[in-house]
Amino acid sequence: MNEDALRDLLESLRNGTASVDDALESLRRLPFEQMDFATVDHHRAIRCGFPEVIYCPSKTPEQVVAIFRSLASGGGNVLATRAGEDVYDAVLAELPDAEYHTPASAITLRQVDSSRAVGHVAVVSAGTSDMSVADEARVTAEIMDAHVTTHYDVGVAGLHRLLAHGEQLQSANAIVVVAGMEGALASVVGGLVSVPVLAVPTSVGYGASFHGLAALLAMLNSCASNVSVVNIDNGFAGGYIAAMINRQAAK
Amino acid sequence: MNEDALRDLLESLRNGTASVDDALESLRRLPFEQMDFATVDHHRAIRCGFPEVIYCPSKTPEQVVAIFRSLASGGGNVLATRAGEDVYDAVLAELPDAEYHTPASAITLRQVDSSRAVGHVAVVSAGTSDMSVADEARVTAEIMDAHVTTHYDVGVAGLHRLLAHGEQLQSANAIVVVAGMEGALASVVGGLVSVPVLAVPTSVGYGASFHGLAALLAMLNSCASNVSVVNIDNGFAGGYIAAMINRQAAK
Amino acid sequence: MNEDALRDLLESLRNGTASVDDALESLRRLPFEQMDFATVDHHRAIRCGFPEVIYCPSKTPEQVVAIFRSLASGGGNVLATRAGEDVYDAVLAELPDAEYHTPASAITLRQVDSSRAVGHVAVVSAGTSDMSVADEARVTAEIMDAHVTTHYDVGVAGLHRLLAHGEQLQSANAIVVVAGMEGALASVVGGLVSVPVLAVPTSVGYGASFHGLAALLAMLNSCASNVSVVNIDNGFAGGYIAAMINRQAAK
Amino acid sequence: MNEDALRDLLESLRNGTASVDDALESLRRLPFEQMDFATVDHHRAIRCGFPEVIYCPSKTPEQVVAIFRSLASGGGNVLATRAGEDVYDAVLAELPDAEYHTPASAITLRQVDSSRAVGHVAVVSAGTSDMSVADEARVTAEIMDAHVTTHYDVGVAGLHRLLAHGEQLQSANAIVVVAGMEGALASVVGGLVSVPVLAVPTSVGYGASFHGLAALLAMLNSCASNVSVVNIDNGFAGGYIAAMINRQAAK
Amino acid sequence: MNEDALRDLLESLRNGTASVDDALESLRRLPFEQMDFATVDHHRAIRCGFPEVIYCPSKTPEQVVAIFRSLASGGGNVLATRAGEDVYDAVLAELPDAEYHTPASAITLRQVDSSRAVGHVAVVSAGTSDMSVADEARVTAEIMDAHVTTHYDVGVAGLHRLLAHGEQLQSANAIVVVAGMEGALASVVGGLVSVPVLAVPTSVGYGASFHGLAALLAMLNSCASNVSVVNIDNGFAGGYIAAMINRQAAK
Amino acid sequence: MNEDALRDLLESLRNGTASVDDALESLRRLPFEQMDFATVDHHRAIRCGFPEVIYCPSKTPEQVVAIFRSLASGGGNVLATRAGEDVYDAVLAELPDAEYHTPASAITLRQVDSSRAVGHVAVVSAGTSDMSVADEARVTAEIMDAHVTTHYDVGVAGLHRLLAHGEQLQSANAIVVVAGMEGALASVVGGLVSVPVLAVPTSVGYGASFHGLAALLAMLNSCASNVSVVNIDNGFAGGYIAAMINRQAAK
Amino acid sequence: MNEDALRDLLESLRNGTASVDDALESLRRLPFEQMDFATVDHHRAIRCGFPEVIYCPSKTPEQVVAIFRSLASGGGNVLATRAGEDVYDAVLAELPDAEYHTPASAITLRQVDSSRAVGHVAVVSAGTSDMSVADEARVTAEIMDAHVTTHYDVGVAGLHRLLAHGEQLQSANAIVVVAGMEGALASVVGGLVSVPVLAVPTSVGYGASFHGLAALLAMLNSCASNVSVVNIDNGFAGGYIAAMINRQAAK
Amino acid sequence: MNEDALRDLLESLRNGTASVDDALESLRRLPFEQMDFATVDHHRAIRCGFPEVIYCPSKTPEQVVAIFRSLASGGGNVLATRAGEDVYDAVLAELPDAEYHTPASAITLRQVDSSRAVGHVAVVSAGTSDMSVADEARVTAEIMDAHVTTHYDVGVAGLHRLLAHGEQLQSANAIVVVAGMEGALASVVGGLVSVPVLAVPTSVGYGASFHGLAALLAMLNSCASNVSVVNIDNGFAGGYIAAMINRQAAK
Repeated sequence: MNEDALRDLLESLRNGTASVDDALESLRRLPFEQMDFATVDHHRAIRCGFPEVIYCPSKTPEQVVAIFRSLASGGGNVLATRAGEDVYDAVLAELPDAEYHTPASAITLRQVDSSRAVGHVAVVSAGTSDMSVADEARVTAEIMDAHVTTHYDVGVAGLHRLLAHGEQLQSANAIVVVAGMEGALASVVGGLVSVPVLAVPTSVGYGASFHGLAALLAMLNSCASNVSVVNIDNGFAGGYIAAMINRQAAK
Repeated sequence: MNEDALRDLLESLRNGTASVDDALESLRRLPFEQMDFATVDHHRAIRCGFPEVIYCPSKTPEQVVAIFRSLASGGGNVLATRAGEDVYDAVLAELPDAEYHTPASAITLRQVDSSRAVGHVAVVSAGTSDMSVADEARVTAEIMDAHVTTHYDVGVAGLHRLLAHGEQLQSANAIVVVAGMEGALASVVGGLVSVPVLAVPTSVGYGASFHGLAALLAMLNSCASNVSVVNIDNGFAGGYIAAMINRQAAK
Repeated sequence: MNEDALRDLLESLRNGTASVDDALESLRRLPFEQMDFATVDHHRAIRCGFPEVIYCPSKTPEQVVAIFRSLASGGGNVLATRAGEDVYDAVLAELPDAEYHTPASAITLRQVDSSRAVGHVAVVSAGTSDMSVADEARVTAEIMDAHVTTHYDVGVAGLHRLLAHGEQLQSANAIVVVAGMEGALASVVGGLVSVPVLAVPTSVGYGASFHGLAALLAMLNSCASNVSVVNIDNGFAGGYIAAMINRQAAK
Repeated sequence: MNEDALRDLLESLRNGTASVDDALESLRRLPFEQMDFATVDHHRAIRCGFPEVIYCPSKTPEQVVAIFRSLASGGGNVLATRAGEDVYDAVLAELPDAEYHTPASAITLRQVDSSRAVGHVAVVSAGTSDMSVADEARVTAEIMDAHVTTHYDVGVAGLHRLLAHGEQLQSANAIVVVAGMEGALASVVGGLVSVPVLAVPTSVGYGASFHGLAALLAMLNSCASNVSVVNIDNGFAGGYIAAMINRQAAK
Repeated sequence: MNEDALRDLLESLRNGTASVDDALESLRRLPFEQMDFATVDHHRAIRCGFPEVIYCPSKTPEQVVAIFRSLASGGGNVLATRAGEDVYDAVLAELPDAEYHTPASAITLRQVDSSRAVGHVAVVSAGTSDMSVADEARVTAEIMDAHVTTHYDVGVAGLHRLLAHGEQLQSANAIVVVAGMEGALASVVGGLVSVPVLAVPTSVGYGASFHGLAALLAMLNSCASNVSVVNIDNGFAGGYIAAMINRQAAK
Repeated sequence: MNEDALRDLLESLRNGTASVDDALESLRRLPFEQMDFATVDHHRAIRCGFPEVIYCPSKTPEQVVAIFRSLASGGGNVLATRAGEDVYDAVLAELPDAEYHTPASAITLRQVDSSRAVGHVAVVSAGTSDMSVADEARVTAEIMDAHVTTHYDVGVAGLHRLLAHGEQLQSANAIVVVAGMEGALASVVGGLVSVPVLAVPTSVGYGASFHGLAALLAMLNSCASNVSVVNIDNGFAGGYIAAMINRQAAK
Repeated sequence: MNEDALRDLLESLRNGTASVDDALESLRRLPFEQMDFATVDHHRAIRCGFPEVIYCPSKTPEQVVAIFRSLASGGGNVLATRAGEDVYDAVLAELPDAEYHTPASAITLRQVDSSRAVGHVAVVSAGTSDMSVADEARVTAEIMDAHVTTHYDVGVAGLHRLLAHGEQLQSANAIVVVAGMEGALASVVGGLVSVPVLAVPTSVGYGASFHGLAALLAMLNSCASNVSVVNIDNGFAGGYIAAMINRQAAK
Repeated sequence: MNEDALRDLLESLRNGTASVDDALESLRRLPFEQMDFATVDHHRAIRCGFPEVIYCPSKTPEQVVAIFRSLASGGGNVLATRAGEDVYDAVLAELPDAEYHTPASAITLRQVDSSRAVGHVAVVSAGTSDMSVADEARVTAEIMDAHVTTHYDVGVAGLHRLLAHGEQLQSANAIVVVAGMEGALASVVGGLVSVPVLAVPTSVGYGASFHGLAALLAMLNSCASNVSVVNIDNGFAGGYIAAMINRQAAK
């Protein structure tokens, strides 16, 4: 129940068209309907460029299609992550404008005018093996109306590759750094720029990388003060927060 | 060496006032002088409200005073974290305007006009035991010219306490959430707002908190998409990044 | 050997129909037969509504059927957990009243009148991915004659969904909370009610969830005093203990 | 805001003594005032025998005294855990009826008639080194009006000591099992009784006990279905939940 | 080079049939040939009932057959562990007396008279799921000429089952205890007997058993002084050491 | 209740001097009295050379003295481990024959004729830093009437030092190997001998030794089949089990 | 851009054949072109015997072939690690001189005269299961123009096998030790020689080897001062660094 | 027993001055006496510039002095690590030429002509807090006759500081990189040079550095192929191996 509906209820109570008991019954649910109001606010947020997100792994293609269609009917952009190509085929059959992104394994439906894209988010990754995670960050930030530049395969063992992108990195409002193995790239990029760095450790590596633990710990211990960290392989969260910061900065 | 200086050098070479060998000598150091340029940029950043930071634990009071004095001479704000009162006494003897912050155990020297403070950073903490970490975040964000509101002792076991601050939280540009034990506060706050949440796990707790590991893992696994995480007890980093985002948003 | 049998033995010794050596031989085994008496008591417990439980993963369909049939012959309810559909088919061929529960992957045979169900156990889960574990808790509590209400997909990132169930939760005698990722739901529910909360961490999540470790640690560190924890993915134990508490409360 | 207050507000709106805007303003805060209602309910719970609890470690004696006095003024029982003797002395100076419990290091103030104690909670511990944790469980359960029996130093390496208490254990409504080292006692007790067992791992042990981790993991993996676990050394939680169950069973 | 061969060499040197240089050449290799002597001693040990052991997992059937045949030619017993049935078929084709043991997945060839078996090793296991590991211990101890009694499915949650075997356990020279989950069985058995207990943790369990870590830590922290531990799932080592102790005791 | 007492009871029942009810009452407690019988058997074990053991760390000097005196009154040997010199002084005041062992920090009282010592236990340690743990093993084995030889400071980085003791090691009935850091000594000794090796990891080391974890894991993974492991720094258990094996072998 | 090219540019500026703007454009890229210079130096290194390396697991056969061909065109040796036979077939179709190495699963193309091999690198491994990792070290060192001797299956449980290779080990310039399980071999070899030992832990083992963690920790804690460690199963790094040291020593 | 002594023995046997039994007795001990020969070789190594090393922490000042004097009497250099100033005072009283090194806390005695120093070892560290570990590496390499250059406080968050040392780093024969926190410096340095890098993780950091674990894992996962790792805080090992490589390269 949003504020207008609430005011209507109160008016109808005041002018006698609703009884106290009726109002009481409606208001008993108010806290939660106010919470629904938060949901309405969330819908408003969607119109502003924040898509609803469907995490596909534990859902059947049919379930994904159903949720996707429901979200699409709201008119905002829609994003589905970690989707197999079979899921995409099922979505495409219903929503012919849906796009599939390789290697991110993401499906997007853009319904909001893309000319609204603003600002600049940079996505940096260490190796070719990190590319699917980095691409998930890119797709997420783009569907949230950020301009995105990508800088892949610029690991710290060959610094010159990274330094060649220095100028572009310094012009971003937020940077997503995706790296596995020793995760050192987050600290090095963090030291080169003066904007927030979202570090995404990946499970790339073997042996003592312990499925991304080494990169995760390294990033949490970054000597650069502007680095914060999200879960292992969570390119979505990196792109999401970077786009949030970018939107604030570009306002 | 910035571009103007470089152009001057090349001009003087072209018109014969510099020899090839002189130019070669100057250019040999170019990459690093360009890096020095980054340092200059860093100085500029300081003038914009980002203080230099002194991490005290591994330094003698004399060393802290020396670095503090040197930084202060640049005219910017200065911040020293994890300082004992003896360190503060030593700093105070030289810099009578330095302030000590309890329970953050931080020393600040404000030399830039505080009326420059902009925007809104909220600092939320779960329990009284987390207060020193939360206060470090507050002091850091304030010395970086953010307006800060604090919301302490609003743990998830009594949700009403947290919800009572809902409106204020929703008006912030960035929120620092400080919590030990199960670290659930970051997810709950993250679900209530649509701005970036900087989660700071603390080592508060005992037994299976494993010195903050439980809170750290919980925050990394947050089901709220807008939560990123810094190191255990690192209130400084939480406040630093929140102030960075706030400054961008308030521009 | 129960007390009556023991008295018989002693009587027959006293009246001379048994020799001292015979009695000595019988009594030598007494502690364990008294332990058998505990087993008898256990049978009595079964008649009271606590089913025998078969953990299927390490057993062949034939073995499960054999144990199932044997237990069923006692007249009590029977529960088999983590059973594939092939196992169910094999059981069904012998026991046509056996039921299969999806997504719990559990088989039940109800032989005790279900009108005996008493009290109220609530099962709460954070996400759709936790549903198989939550459903195992539900099936277990129901076959132990508890009335069960379920509250699925009420994670902390959308508190209003959870608060909408507040009244029902407060009327339960015990609550099972099933959550993966950061496991914050247990603390939040614990803070809303004044009955025991059985927290079941799940292995849902990726990266730094470390197969449920993050949720497990979070739940063990809950700031709510009424939360105790069982093994990762162990919906059975959560439902079992909740039903035990419920039965005591409903007496 | 409870239902009566809400009805009053609506009546005053209907009869014109309140304006729509006033009502709107009041209702905007409704969810949180309903939460205050939950707080009132919490006070009621205190009157029923659940004390407020003060966790002392991070507080000064003065702070503990202030909180203690404030809680005592409500007329309910008060419990302070992990209190040094100096804290007790400070409390005693103000509240001469306060009692100190060694080895629990707990302070209690009983203001509710102790004849209200009901039911039976058993506290079992493995070794003399676990006694402070076990005693914290006992003190907590007693101040929550449970009858408590204690069974200390009955570790599994001498089973006969434990079995000698079998009858008493079977008559309890809930059992707290406190054990360090290999934590096996929880499983053995769990197998002997048909009521909930609250397992409290302790940090007693050395080397590969890893400060209680070994006992914690063992208890989480108990082959007895009626065992749930709280944090390492958290005797308070064990006693609290056991008393909760006991109160329900003894109703 | 064994002592007799060495004496021959020295004699031939002394009586002139060998030159100093020849002897020097032979002796230059002596340390290693003395080490070979240790190997010879090892061969002697085989004749005494200690078999050579082939660990199959990283070997092709052909390799296993080759090593098996070579060892068999020495006349002693042969043991191959973790062998698939295809490996057994290959061995059987060459050595028709080889036997396959289910569920141990072990192949044995007994060439030494089995009437030499002495003493008593008891193998105790907690659950049916531990049976393959327990059986590996049994097969190993038997091929090393120990009399073995087995006591399966006697977990601590039903103590009477274990106590029923008390007398037999007390008559053993060494006991192998195989248990997963919480591993409590080792401590309980250790407290019942006064001979060495070889504890074998198994990877049976799920969630917080962490593939046997919980049982391993529990066993290492046993409060019974006579418990030592081998690697997770290493039934072979448990049986091997128990048989070693048994042989010494039965001498 | 031992068998004679039981027979007496049954006789008195048979000849009418006891009633069935009296007998029933006595027998109701039989299992535990039979367990007391196990205790009696334990006392017998003490007479055979196995001392009672007092673990001092969690006890006051007064408590240690009380237990020590009580055990001494039984006439057997007494051992107290991890005792400070102040504890020894307190014991010495009452029991002038008590001895203190440096660096083991153990107190022994020998009351059984030491000429009963039999067999041979070898204690091997890697470095001087491991000596207190190794000495605890020695003291324990000696008070349990084993002849003990010690071989300290024979780490694997200088193999010749170890090999120089080869002959003595091969003559032992059981060997205790005490090592920190990489714990390799257990495997090397295990490969040199054909008797059980009790490996005791120590917390000696720094950094990635993680307080003994590195040595513990290494010993559990020993490629020598005759190595079993006890808890970190648990020299007592190593000496205890070695003496147990030695006594069996020397019978 | 190397120094000669830079001097040419400056000369052409000075003599007027280049404009200041042209020079500025070239120099803007200087730091990175100097970094390219490092790349040129790297090419030079390749000519000196250090091959380019392709890590195959995350690449398609087509990608490997493309990179392989590109590297081969430079005239140096080429190495591809962790390549399946299908990848080799694809490479072979284009580069008929490429060789496949079993069990290393590596592809090499030798284009530099193999007579340039110098020095001596020894590769030592503990068990047959470690052979693929050891062979990767051998292949890597050989393609980097080291003479390599291999010493496989010389684990510490049979020291004489290792000691038999003592003389050869002492003549090497660097030694790669490959071992799983308890990883003791690194310390033992380290103690026998006075050259750097590169320790490569392997994931061989089960249970408490935790996929190579046990060996890794053991090697990091080696009591031999000349042991340094690379990642689990990283035979490539072991061989690479050993060859680097060997080349320096053999200069 | 070296070869000459062996030949003497054989001669005396051949010419009858020794009996076969005498020879047999001598030869029985041969392997170990040959090991003594290895010790002689070790002495030779000392004369070549490798000092004996005394690890002080577990030794009394008296013990350190005794060992120090004994080693000094051999004429070689002597090194004692982790020595307090009190230990230095005790050493100085006997050996007036001993020097103390702050912040390494090391004592050296140089008896071999320092003009023998050769080659170039570079020691690089990330922060001032790492200085004691870095200095231990420097002292160790210098006493082993390496020329050492130090490059402190060149962490990756300010790359230009590191790059400014690029030329000097490229001229070293081996580089020791000392870093705590995220340990990224090892990878960055490794990518800049073509010589072996010895990475020394330090325990500097807090929270999720877990006492150096984060840096250790990062270094083990370095994407630079020339990085190998020693134990946390083990500056000695880093300097020792670097000096070993340097000596080979400088030959």
